[in-house]
Amino acid sequence: MHPDTHAHADAQFSATRNRLDALLRIPSVSTVPAHADDVRRAARWIADWMTEMGMTRAEIYEAEGRLPLVYGEWLGAGETAPTVLIYTHYDVQPADKSDGWDTEPFEPTERNGKLYARGAVDSKCHVVIQLAAIEALLKGGGAPVNLKVLCEGEEESGSEHIYAFVAQNPDLLRADVCVISDGSLPNEHQPVLDYGLRGIISFEIHVKGPRRDLHSGHYGGSVHNPIQALAEIVAQLHAPDGSVSVPGFYDQVAPFTDEERAVLAPMHAPFEQEWQDVTGAPAPWGEQGYSAHERIAVRPTLELNGIYGGYIGEGVKTVLPSTAVAKLSCRLVPYQTPDHVWECLHTHIHALTPPSVTVEVKRMEMGAEAFIIDRTSPALKAVTAAYEQGWGVKPLLSREGGSIPVTAEFQRYLSAQLVMMPFGYKNGGAHSINENCDLGMVQKGIHTMLHFYRALADG
Amino acid sequence: MHPDTHAHADAQFSATRNRLDALLRIPSVSTVPAHADDVRRAARWIADWMTEMGMTRAEIYEAEGRLPLVYGEWLGAGETAPTVLIYTHYDVQPADKSDGWDTEPFEPTERNGKLYARGAVDSKCHVVIQLAAIEALLKGGGAPVNLKVLCEGEEESGSEHIYAFVAQNPDLLRADVCVISDGSLPNEHQPVLDYGLRGIISFEIHVKGPRRDLHSGHYGGSVHNPIQALAEIVAQLHAPDGSVSVPGFYDQVAPFTDEERAVLAPMHAPFEQEWQDVTGAPAPWGEQGYSAHERIAVRPTLELNGIYGGYIGEGVKTVLPSTAVAKLSCRLVPYQTPDHVWECLHTHIHALTPPSVTVEVKRMEMGAEAFIIDRTSPALKAVTAAYEQGWGVKPLLSREGGSIPVTAEFQRYLSAQLVMMPFGYKNGGAHSINENCDLGMVQKGIHTMLHFYRALADG
Repeated sequence: MHPDTHAHADAQFSATRNRLDALLRIPSVSTVPAHADDVRRAARWIADWMTEMGMTRAEIYEAEGRLPLVYGEWLGAGETAPTVLIYTHYDVQPADKSDGWDTEPFEPTERNGKLYARGAVDSKCHVVIQLAAIEALLKGGGAPVNLKVLCEGEEESGSEHIYAFVAQNPDLLRADVCVISDGSLPNEHQPVLDYGLRGIISFEIHVKGPRRDLHSGHYGGSVHNPIQALAEIVAQLHAPDGSVSVPGFYDQVAPFTDEERAVLAPMHAPFEQEWQDVTGAPAPWGEQGYSAHERIAVRPTLELNGIYGGYIGEGVKTVLPSTAVAKLSCRLVPYQTPDHVWECLHTHIHALTPPSVTVEVKRMEMGAEAFIIDRTSPALKAVTAAYEQGWGVKPLLSREGGSIPVTAEFQRYLSAQLVMMPFGYKNGGAHSINENCDLGMVQKGIHTMLHFYRALADG
Repeated sequence: MHPDTHAHADAQFSATRNRLDALLRIPSVSTVPAHADDVRRAARWIADWMTEMGMTRAEIYEAEGRLPLVYGEWLGAGETAPTVLIYTHYDVQPADKSDGWDTEPFEPTERNGKLYARGAVDSKCHVVIQLAAIEALLKGGGAPVNLKVLCEGEEESGSEHIYAFVAQNPDLLRADVCVISDGSLPNEHQPVLDYGLRGIISFEIHVKGPRRDLHSGHYGGSVHNPIQALAEIVAQLHAPDGSVSVPGFYDQVAPFTDEERAVLAPMHAPFEQEWQDVTGAPAPWGEQGYSAHERIAVRPTLELNGIYGGYIGEGVKTVLPSTAVAKLSCRLVPYQTPDHVWECLHTHIHALTPPSVTVEVKRMEMGAEAFIIDRTSPALKAVTAAYEQGWGVKPLLSREGGSIPVTAEFQRYLSAQLVMMPFGYKNGGAHSINENCDLGMVQKGIHTMLHFYRALADG
C-alpha cells in the first residue's frame, strides 16, 4: 500500500460525496415490486463504478424473480496476502414525503454536515465508504489484501436470494475474513463494535368476521367485531411483566451468563442516554429483570409493525368491518430458530382465536437466525485497532438489536472469520422519516477501512 | 284527494325511477369536506323538483360552515286538515370502487330489480319516494293533508346543524304528525315498524409512544409499541361475557321488562334468519342473557369502526411506530345520555393507559340520545294500516339498532306525534359495499305514503 493512500481518500472525497448523492437518488425500494427496475438501476450503477476504479471483476447476478446481487473483486495482493470479503446492501425501505419527511426522501439534501435521504444510513453510506476505500487503494497502486465485494439488493425484503447464492458459490466468495458493513454506531463520537445481532421472523394476522362490512347500528352487538377480536388476540401475546407469552417462545434461548452481563455492562449508561435522546418515549418499557440495553441486545421480542381495519379516513364512518390485519415481527436471539418460533406463534394464535371469527396467520419471510461471534478472534482485534485509529477513541464491545439476516448464512457456508464494521449512527433515522448519514463519519469510515486492511496485512 | 292518485303514481313511475338515478349520481358525501359542493348540488336538485311539482315553498337553508337543509311545503288542504312533517336525508357515507364494489358507487346500475349505488337505500330512495308521492297527489289536484318536507345534508356526519334549526324554527316545522323516513325493513316482504332507535356517540383513541417511528431492531423490546398498547386498551373495553366493561356505562339504561320482551319475541326468529343471511359471521357473539335481536334492539354497544398504525402497505417494514389510532362508536339505548357515556369512556380509557405511552381520547360528534315512542299512538296505527295496505301483510312491531340522531330533537322541540316509515331493506348494504335499493319497494313505498295520508285525513 502506497503511504499516501489516506491522502488519496481525502483528495477524492468531494467526488465520493457526489457519488453518494447519485446513489441516493435511485429509489431502490426492494419491498415494493413497482420499484424493481430502480433496484436494478442501482446495481448497474455500483458495477459501473467497480469497473471504472479498476476492480478486475464486476458482475451482476440476477436469478429469475429476484433482485440483483453485485459482485466485484481485485485479487492483486498475491496468494500469500489475506483475502477480505466485504458484504453490504444497496436496497432501501419504502419512503414517502407524506410520511412526515422534511424533504423529498429520494432527493438528498445536506444540512449541518448530515445528508438526508432514504437509504443514507441504511445502507448506501456503507456501499460508498467501501468502494471509496478500495478506489483510494487502487489509485495508490494497489491494496495490501485481496478484495471481494458483495452488494445485496434484497436485504430489506427478506434476503432470500442471497442465501442460495452463498450456499452455491463458496469458491467465489472464499475469504479469510468477511466484513459485514451495515448498521449503526450509537453516535458520531464513540465507536461500539458488535459481536452479535438478533435474528428475525415476520408474519401477519388476518382476522375475518362478517363476510362483508356491516352497518354498526343494524348488527352491532350481535357480531364479533374483527378489530376487537384482533386487539384481544394481540393483547394476549405479552404478559404483564413485558415478556412474550407465547408457549415455547423462549425454549431455545441461550442463558445470559454473569460473565457476558459484565462485558455488556459499560453499554448500559450510554444506551440509556441514547434511548432518551432518540426515542422520546414517555417511560421505559420491557421485560422485567433486564436493563434497557439488555432488552435489545440479548432478549427476543414480538413487535407490532402495522395494523389496519375498517374505516381509516377522515371523520366518522359507523361501519362494522369484515376484516382486520396486524403485521408483526419477532427479533430472535441465539439459538432460536425461525421455524420453531413460527410453529409456536401460529399454533398459539389459532388457540387464542374465538369461534366467532376466523383467523389466518401468514409467514411473510423465512426469517433469519441471530448471529454471534467469538469476542477474541484476530479479525475482531484488527477491527478494534482500525476504529481506534480512525476515531481516536477506544471502542466498546456490544451486541446489537437489529438483524442482518445474511450473517447467519455466511457463518454457515464460509469458513471466514466474520466481523461487523458499521458506519451509520442511531440518530440516522433508519426505517423512519428524515433518514440521514453524517458526512464526517463517511470520511472517517473510509480511513478506518484503510487502517483495517493495513492491520490485517501486517498480521 | 282525487281517486286516481295511485294511478298517477304508477303512470309517472318511470320518470320517478330516472329521478332516483339522477340523485344517486351526485356524490353528496357529507363526511368528507372535499364533497361539500356535491352536497350543495344535491340540495339544489331537491329544491328544484319541489318547485317543479307545485309545492308552494322550496328553500335551502345553509348556515356558515354547515351543509344545507332543504325545506318544502304545500299547505292547500286547509286549516282543519292535519299537517304532516316528513324528515329524510340526502347525504351519504363515503364510497370508493376499490373498497370492493362490483360497479362504480356513483354510477347507478340496475340488476334484477335492484338499483346499486351509494345512498340507494340510505337514504336517497326515501327522498324520492316522499317527493314522488307528493307529486302524484298534486298532479291529482291536491293532498288530503298539509305537507312539510325537511331534507337534511349532514345525517351521516353528526346532524349538528339540524339540532339548532329545529330548536329555532318550531313555527315553520309545526305539525300534527312527524314522519321520519329513513332506515330499513328486514326484507322486501315483511314490513316491520320500529318504535325505537338507538342513539350514538363516536370517538377516537390516539396512542403515542416514541416521538417518531423507530427501527424495530434498534429499540424493539425497550419501548412500549403504541399498536400493542392500543390493542391492550381496546381489549379491556369488553368483559368476557360480551358486555362493555367501562364503569358507569350501563348506569342510565332502562330495565328491559318482561312485557316488552314479549312484544319483541316475534322478531327473534326472523332476525336470526336475517343475521345468518346478511352477516355470514362464523358464530354468534354478544352480551350473555340476550337474544341476537335483543342485543341490537335494547342493549348499548361499543364498536370498533376503524384502526390504523405503523406500516399498512404491501410486504414487510420492520418499523416500531410512533402512533396508533382507533375509531370507535357506541350505540346508546334509552335513557343513556351521550355526555354521561363520554365521561365514562374517556375517564376509563385514561385510567387504562400505562405510563409508557400517552393517550388522547377525542369526541368526534356530540352524539344523539336513543329514541322511543308510544306503541299505542294514533299516528302509529295509521302507519300500521298504510303498510298493511301497501304490502298486503300485517306489520310486526320492533326496535331498531341504528340511529337517526334528529329523532330525539324532533321529540324535544316539536309536539307532533313521531312515527318512522322506512322503505329500505337490510340486504341493501347501507354503509357498506354494493349498496342497493329494491325498485319494487320504492313503488310500494309511494303507494304506502298515499294510504297513510288518506288514513290520517279520514282520522
